Amino acid sequence: LDVITLTTDFGMGKYVAAIKGIILGINPGARIVDVDHNVRPQNIREGAYVLFSCLRYFPPSIHMGVVDPGVGAGRRNIIVECTDSLLVGPDNGLLIPASRVLGLKQVWEVKNPRFMRPKVSPTFHGRDIFAPVAAHLSLGVAPAEVGAPIEDFVGLDFGSHSVTEWEIRGQVIYVDRFGNLITNIPREAIEGWAQFGEELAIQVGGRAYAGPFQTTYSTAPKGSVLLTISSSDLLEVSVNMGSASQKLGAREGFEVVVGKT
Amino acid sequence: LDVITLTTDFGMGKYVAAIKGIILGINPGARIVDVDHNVRPQNIREGAYVLFSCLRYFPPSIHMGVVDPGVGAGRRNIIVECTDSLLVGPDNGLLIPASRVLGLKQVWEVKNPRFMRPKVSPTFHGRDIFAPVAAHLSLGVAPAEVGAPIEDFVGLDFGSHSVTEWEIRGQVIYVDRFGNLITNIPREAIEGWAQFGEELAIQVGGRAYAGPFQTTYSTAPKGSVLLTISSSDLLEVSVNMGSASQKLGAREGFEVVVGKT
Amino acid sequence: LDVITLTTDFGMGKYVAAIKGIILGINPGARIVDVDHNVRPQNIREGAYVLFSCLRYFPPSIHMGVVDPGVGAGRRNIIVECTDSLLVGPDNGLLIPASRVLGLKQVWEVKNPRFMRPKVSPTFHGRDIFAPVAAHLSLGVAPAEVGAPIEDFVGLDFGSHSVTEWEIRGQVIYVDRFGNLITNIPREAIEGWAQFGEELAIQVGGRAYAGPFQTTYSTAPKGSVLLTISSSDLLEVSVNMGSASQKLGAREGFEVVVGKT
Repeated sequence: LDVITLTTDFGMGKYVAAIKGIILGINPGARIVDVDHNVRPQNIREGAYVLFSCLRYFPPSIHMGVVDPGVGAGRRNIIVECTDSLLVGPDNGLLIPASRVLGLKQVWEVKNPRFMRPKVSPTFHGRDIFAPVAAHLSLGVAPAEVGAPIEDFVGLDFGSHSVTEWEIRGQVIYVDRFGNLITNIPREAIEGWAQFGEELAIQVGGRAYAGPFQTTYSTAPKGSVLLTISSSDLLEVSVNMGSASQKLGAREGFEVVVGKT
Repeated sequence: LDVITLTTDFGMGKYVAAIKGIILGINPGARIVDVDHNVRPQNIREGAYVLFSCLRYFPPSIHMGVVDPGVGAGRRNIIVECTDSLLVGPDNGLLIPASRVLGLKQVWEVKNPRFMRPKVSPTFHGRDIFAPVAAHLSLGVAPAEVGAPIEDFVGLDFGSHSVTEWEIRGQVIYVDRFGNLITNIPREAIEGWAQFGEELAIQVGGRAYAGPFQTTYSTAPKGSVLLTISSSDLLEVSVNMGSASQKLGAREGFEVVVGKT
Repeated sequence: LDVITLTTDFGMGKYVAAIKGIILGINPGARIVDVDHNVRPQNIREGAYVLFSCLRYFPPSIHMGVVDPGVGAGRRNIIVECTDSLLVGPDNGLLIPASRVLGLKQVWEVKNPRFMRPKVSPTFHGRDIFAPVAAHLSLGVAPAEVGAPIEDFVGLDFGSHSVTEWEIRGQVIYVDRFGNLITNIPREAIEGWAQFGEELAIQVGGRAYAGPFQTTYSTAPKGSVLLTISSSDLLEVSVNMGSASQKLGAREGFEVVVGKT
């Protein structure tokens, strides 16, 4: 497992560089890939969504995730063993949605100081624990050498959605760079329920719009609201050639209701 | 061709990471280089300038570019075969100015689904078409296996400039991070016409300034307007130790007129 | 020395990409690591701090740093030979604090045009001098082949601190992404002087606060001011779950006085 991916809220800079230096010192052959270092500071749910939505596209890899408001306050450090890949990070839910996609087999608590740096900073486990653990795992060290199995790890999900004959309810879980609102409503829920091309009622944060359910952005008039399926197979509220977040004044956590007209 | 460069308007984050995951799954030996992911959303001209100005410094490589407002609306996907390198992206002009620098030999339309992901998202060809195509090309697959030659590809240029005895006219095509205004006026046009050290009249967006034509920034007084040759061999309007864009209120598209005083 | 790190004020984009292209053309096996490209434009001290705080975590490497307001104005280009690593960049102090950490042995002025690009842009030594020099060094070329030893290189430090029985004085040298204020007061100065858990008087920029000296952020009440040791072993003024920079209106250069209550 030569590939080691990194996802943090550190910003691209010297903290991430220190992590890479530690990894390359242990495994000079590691192929390090930056996934995202601009997770909003301490926003575990956003980090979890980033990991959830893109780790599935990687070959078998080591995935390190650090969004860690509880660092130094006693929360555990974990390895999540999945079908072909290993995830490393804090036990705060961050790694769990992605791990379920990758086939979660066993969670291990990191215990063995032999795979940590000799002196562990209480504020920078990314550098002193997760980086050396990830590098050793990429060299073939087994999770069982690094720690002990646990069952009571901290979970996290993206909330529930509901489907009735007349409406589907869910919520915005991510706003992308283009202002598209990604919801927690899966492709399966909407595809049987509405037809492509169908005009639907769309409520976001209590305000009402109407727009078509489409396979792509660009067939709608410029500036119009529309529903589409995101590249992560989730229902997405978009504005053609514009920002849905700005036009609808919506952000993460807003309720979304899609209804028959 | 182990090097695969990436230029997009996705922002550095999970979309780019998905592309890297797909590439590494197909060619684990690929050396992926991020060129720029902060092209302003859907700004094809800016993306084209980024590619134009820096691909020339790479060894023979695969270059993937994705600034793609028309994704899913029927525009073609292309490979541009150049003297030593291959470019992959949408058929919207994005790849063309750089390809001319690299020696454009033949444009191919991507056709063969064998080199795409099994299910192609209508909104994310970067992940589902361009990434696997780029990875296969880097493994030695020939463009002729992936598609068919076309002649009617979409072109793009950076506008024309004119030179008379008394003035040179062009336009701002890029504003860099320091606020320097890069124009479409080539080194050849200005170097014969003015002498280094000569004081010139400079109009930007209809407002008039005066400043010297210099070989470097730092010989001018702090805050003064000056003309120099950018590292891409284009005439550049700069402010020493400051931002020309801010001081002159100028941005991409503004007309630039340089005159004899 | 396969690893080449890059630290600049260019922003992640086409200028950095050009540098990577040049490096990969000379040494296709180079493992390029981005340290930070968002050093504030022309802020040599910030760049020096970035290098100082993170190069120590790398295995023996080539480190290239470019924050270079004097480019083209006659300042020298240097290689700093340290115990196991080599640094390349302008002779303006940028590389010196990090070099002292890595064991500065000898500074060399870059002289030999054989290791530069044939035509050197006066505004982009990063691409035309530092990149090819770094790539050749990573291939095993010795500094003595590239240049000549010098002794009168430009130095830089982070200011002094003072310790009395009643107070420690220093200054803010870096504000991180979370708004933590990193000072130039080393761990050794504070650890003997105060106890973990002790309540101290904290003056920042002339305004007075009080807060505990802690081993970590998260044991303090949310929003409260506290002192801790940064991951670089420097005293840090923080606000738990908040930004000290915002709350205290403080930035780089502000005086910090820690006193007994």
